[in-house]
Amino acid sequence: MTADLSLLDATDQAGLVHRGEVTAVELAEAAISRIEALDPVLNAVVTPMFEQALDAAKAGPSGPFAGVPYLLKDLACELRGVRFTEGSRFLAGNVSTYDSELVVRLRRAGLVIVGKTNTPEFGMAPACEPVLFGPTRNPWDTGLSTSGSSGGSAAAVAAGLVPFAHGNDLGGSLRYPASACGLFALKPTRARNPLGPEYGDVAAGAAVEHALTRSVRDSAALLDATSGPAPGDPYCAPAPDRPFLDEVGREPGRLRIGFTARTPSGDLGHPDCVAAVEHAARLCESLGHDVTEVSWPEFTPEVHAAIGTMLDGTTAWILQYWIRRVGREPGPDEIEPLTRALWERGRQVTAADWLVSVEELQRFSRRIARFLGTVDTFLTPTMSTPPLPIGTIYSTPDQPWRSVEVSGPAVRYAGIVANLTGNPAMSVPLWHNAAGVPIGVHFLGRYGDEATLLRLASQLEAAAPWAGRIPTTHAHHLLTGQASLGRAT
Amino acid sequence: MTADLSLLDATDQAGLVHRGEVTAVELAEAAISRIEALDPVLNAVVTPMFEQALDAAKAGPSGPFAGVPYLLKDLACELRGVRFTEGSRFLAGNVSTYDSELVVRLRRAGLVIVGKTNTPEFGMAPACEPVLFGPTRNPWDTGLSTSGSSGGSAAAVAAGLVPFAHGNDLGGSLRYPASACGLFALKPTRARNPLGPEYGDVAAGAAVEHALTRSVRDSAALLDATSGPAPGDPYCAPAPDRPFLDEVGREPGRLRIGFTARTPSGDLGHPDCVAAVEHAARLCESLGHDVTEVSWPEFTPEVHAAIGTMLDGTTAWILQYWIRRVGREPGPDEIEPLTRALWERGRQVTAADWLVSVEELQRFSRRIARFLGTVDTFLTPTMSTPPLPIGTIYSTPDQPWRSVEVSGPAVRYAGIVANLTGNPAMSVPLWHNAAGVPIGVHFLGRYGDEATLLRLASQLEAAAPWAGRIPTTHAHHLLTGQASLGRAT
Repeated sequence: MTADLSLLDATDQAGLVHRGEVTAVELAEAAISRIEALDPVLNAVVTPMFEQALDAAKAGPSGPFAGVPYLLKDLACELRGVRFTEGSRFLAGNVSTYDSELVVRLRRAGLVIVGKTNTPEFGMAPACEPVLFGPTRNPWDTGLSTSGSSGGSAAAVAAGLVPFAHGNDLGGSLRYPASACGLFALKPTRARNPLGPEYGDVAAGAAVEHALTRSVRDSAALLDATSGPAPGDPYCAPAPDRPFLDEVGREPGRLRIGFTARTPSGDLGHPDCVAAVEHAARLCESLGHDVTEVSWPEFTPEVHAAIGTMLDGTTAWILQYWIRRVGREPGPDEIEPLTRALWERGRQVTAADWLVSVEELQRFSRRIARFLGTVDTFLTPTMSTPPLPIGTIYSTPDQPWRSVEVSGPAVRYAGIVANLTGNPAMSVPLWHNAAGVPIGVHFLGRYGDEATLLRLASQLEAAAPWAGRIPTTHAHHLLTGQASLGRAT
Repeated sequence: MTADLSLLDATDQAGLVHRGEVTAVELAEAAISRIEALDPVLNAVVTPMFEQALDAAKAGPSGPFAGVPYLLKDLACELRGVRFTEGSRFLAGNVSTYDSELVVRLRRAGLVIVGKTNTPEFGMAPACEPVLFGPTRNPWDTGLSTSGSSGGSAAAVAAGLVPFAHGNDLGGSLRYPASACGLFALKPTRARNPLGPEYGDVAAGAAVEHALTRSVRDSAALLDATSGPAPGDPYCAPAPDRPFLDEVGREPGRLRIGFTARTPSGDLGHPDCVAAVEHAARLCESLGHDVTEVSWPEFTPEVHAAIGTMLDGTTAWILQYWIRRVGREPGPDEIEPLTRALWERGRQVTAADWLVSVEELQRFSRRIARFLGTVDTFLTPTMSTPPLPIGTIYSTPDQPWRSVEVSGPAVRYAGIVANLTGNPAMSVPLWHNAAGVPIGVHFLGRYGDEATLLRLASQLEAAAPWAGRIPTTHAHHLLTGQASLGRAT
């Protein structure tokens, strides 16, 4: 029973509960049992909430996902009474004092939260190897990184621990781990999902909340359950024409799809990533879309500098926020060398520098909007390398910028563009390299237009279904009930 | 003919053109003639554009306001090829190199722009007395201030130079001069009108664009013509249910109106302002609304400090922006003492301080949203004193903060709250003090809900019409064709 459930998406699991074929408690117990079996290898779940989960399941949840197990990424989104670390030793003993609005809505949707997932410190790396908890391992090859920052959730979903899990995305953090772990991730439009009550916006509107899923319909239905303005939000996303779930399976029409295998600087990414995007372009063409190779809009040095200022300033704010909440500064060994370096640089950023950078990025957004006036969506690889080996991405006190230098070449397709503009984007798991490791492709959509992305994604899912291909770790567990140090090949 | 036209609102002037009873050129000539007659006294129009206006009128404009004369406030909103100063000697020789999206839309609506109006330096005072151009005089009493920062436009509309005029509002700058000059001003929801292509947002979303009008319908119809997202905007306002003009005259139903004559600190404003709000509360009650005295939501010291940080940081950004565009720093006599003091303080603000302040203000917005869950709109005086005498509000190098200290007691009803939250608000000209000087009342609405405000405003306009009462300056000109140094009594 446990093994079978792990192959079902959230919509199917909810259907079982709805029809009385399985109970919420059984689903929770099965998820807990999978976590107990596989997580010693994966290290995806950093804070189990098994007792709370069983209590919630027994209480008889209702809603579209009534009784379906869920995991919450341990970043930005808080759950009262539970440890909340953001991957930092500085917050190792921190307990949340309130529920984020997103958590309120997840529970209202009937989800049963069974634990918290791993994240790099403050989410500031495309990796998931914090000093606090150690690395999360990729279920496709436990020697590889899950990428990040939502790497804990990605590993958990890919390995079948839960059918889908929470993540957030300030510069690619939903889409990079989706690419690395063979999952679907929709980054919604700015302000589509709530950030309150604690935050109004984060990082000049760059940060969004949503989920990593195996099926497109799960992502759409969950967005229906969680999205929409909350009182006091500083701004809201345009209302959709119909429920997002209704876009799934809906004919997308003949889309103008611009694609490139080149990075914004004109180079090619890793051959596996180039192959992934070329395959996706051919697939789109075979589905009747108008697919054309295009060039990136111009990335000026001013835009690059503004992105740096935004990330530095955001880190300084994060530290200032937590220092106020904790009531003291972090000790020498309580934050990682990269965080300290970003913080120290970020403290030098003035408000005027920040605002000039935001102004620059908002002008850049208008260039992207003009570009997206010429195509309906823009197809690129999600990442510019396959997942890197565990232990590659780290910094030392002597080399605080090392992790940025090492991870930079992996994220050269600028997933952060969708965050700067507020536009929706998605990583779709359409390709595996020769080693069997998944390689995602990335579609950037128009502002407010998740609809087109979801229609296209469901069309691709139907044409080239990915649900049947599961990672070694998951397959081995299905066959033996045991955890394994899996390899993709 | 000139005198008669000056009594018509923009909708009626557009009707004359539409029916062929008057030409766009005749309307432009009449406006120019009124400006030439009255502006030597008022000093509202700092940059005439008479030739361009006549050319535009001759070209046969089309749109809902085809041929109606309009004035543009000389702040934030640019018109290519025309001097653009923001009230600063630093920009005395500056010429705009592009058209703001708002200007594109104003022209598309058929408006004929006949000039630019006065503003305090960078809009940073509830006054309109820049060193560069000198004070704008209040048409109701030329010894009095128009308040600000849209004081030039307010004087021009109140005196009948044009039927309506552009303004913008970062902390009350549409509503304060509307109060002081007996006009209607709607501050729309955040991002309702465009700020591009140069800006995405300004001052953490505080700044909005719109107009000072005599009639409610002009404000609504103009908002229909100018509002809506532009490609690349960082966020947009919720789409209205129907055209704003259709809200005018629509039954508002029985509204729950909370009111107070007290300032957020619990004191009463000037007796004239208290009388104005008490009169408005009684009027609303007589129209069948549920009117209750309420208390302000809590203004913590943290909120006050955050507002200060926001204004300081914004000033530093404005200076940094202009220094980059002009290519040099302002000389010692090129910016006013208050601007220099704000700039110097603003330069000390770090990005982290800015972001912590924005976070604080966004939490405050949630308190206001909860408060507006208990009432449909919140009624207070717009200003806490009648307009002050010309020459009251100024700073000196020795006393750079003097103008803030002097003007502070006039704006204690916190018009800036609507800017911090992004909510719509309006000043309605329902009262005159014993000296005949207008005193506006202020309604704060729910986020995205201009509809309720416009319905209420049009109901109040019908119940207590203000169009028939015109300032001394305007009346004297109607009678004699001459300018006069009018007094309200």
